[in-house]
Amino acid sequence: MNTTMTTPASTATTAIEPDPLVPIIRLTRDFAATAAQLFRAHTDPDLFARWVGPDGMTTTLDRWDASTGGSWRYVATRDEREFAFYGCFHEVRPDRIVQTFTWEGDPDEVALETLTFEDLGDGRTRLHTQSLCDSFESRDAWLRSGMEVGVDQGYAKLDALLAAGEVAGTVEGARV
Amino acid sequence: MNTTMTTPASTATTAIEPDPLVPIIRLTRDFAATAAQLFRAHTDPDLFARWVGPDGMTTTLDRWDASTGGSWRYVATRDEREFAFYGCFHEVRPDRIVQTFTWEGDPDEVALETLTFEDLGDGRTRLHTQSLCDSFESRDAWLRSGMEVGVDQGYAKLDALLAAGEVAGTVEGARV
Repeated sequence: MNTTMTTPASTATTAIEPDPLVPIIRLTRDFAATAAQLFRAHTDPDLFARWVGPDGMTTTLDRWDASTGGSWRYVATRDEREFAFYGCFHEVRPDRIVQTFTWEGDPDEVALETLTFEDLGDGRTRLHTQSLCDSFESRDAWLRSGMEVGVDQGYAKLDALLAAGEVAGTVEGARV
Repeated sequence: MNTTMTTPASTATTAIEPDPLVPIIRLTRDFAATAAQLFRAHTDPDLFARWVGPDGMTTTLDRWDASTGGSWRYVATRDEREFAFYGCFHEVRPDRIVQTFTWEGDPDEVALETLTFEDLGDGRTRLHTQSLCDSFESRDAWLRSGMEVGVDQGYAKLDALLAAGEVAGTVEGARV
């Protein structure tokens, strides 16, 4: 009889799939959370800054209006190196966020990102993200950049915040 | 000897090209204008409302902040039928505008649009627009929609505004 407790946080994996026909990266990741909690984790600036990005980076949001027509910019810092990212929120609604994404180190590369939150029942929710680039070269450069490390480490931090009860489950108040 | 005056307005044509490899529509159109005038025509709300869209439509902007991180929404009206469009401005700079675009009648279809203004010399400027969709089906639906009629008629109205001297050539003051 197996008495080992396996937490959802420790077993979840992120699936990253390049589309064969269009320059899209699709990612899916399950969380022990409601859709409202995932929505809040992606829109509340204090929460978002605590989990996004790889281990050892500090994220500072200097613009953040997670509402339809709003915009955002944050700076990730490690060992005095800074990486800034920015974009605008095309649409923010409880089941779907559409936003643009640029790294300021390559400012003419712009991705269009779509996040959806799929309720799986049992309190779990599947996050789907779609990142659309304007060429296969750009898309494949992202895939080769080691993005999966930051993605996995970030989601593990979000798992920990969820497990610690630090992500409220209501949609109200998620915007600033 | 040919004594007929041919105005740039009457001879300009819009080239619309679907990309064979990615779900992009590219469009090019030359104008008897400076890049600064084309920038202003795409960012000044009063000017933009006067030329965008097909003949016989009235365009009313109800949200317009043509700056990086800003957003927009307008309603086009003809014969009591209304068509609303909205998006956000990812980046607005004198040589390049990147924005999202959605028709509210199909709100989950989002295009990422990039406009650039190429100075051809002699006071002429080539407008390049790139519309990136997330599938070939979406892209081809736009191509089949008769979009070229509205595009051509809109640019002809812009030609007329330029010929009438109604588009100032400075970048300053183009944002609201």
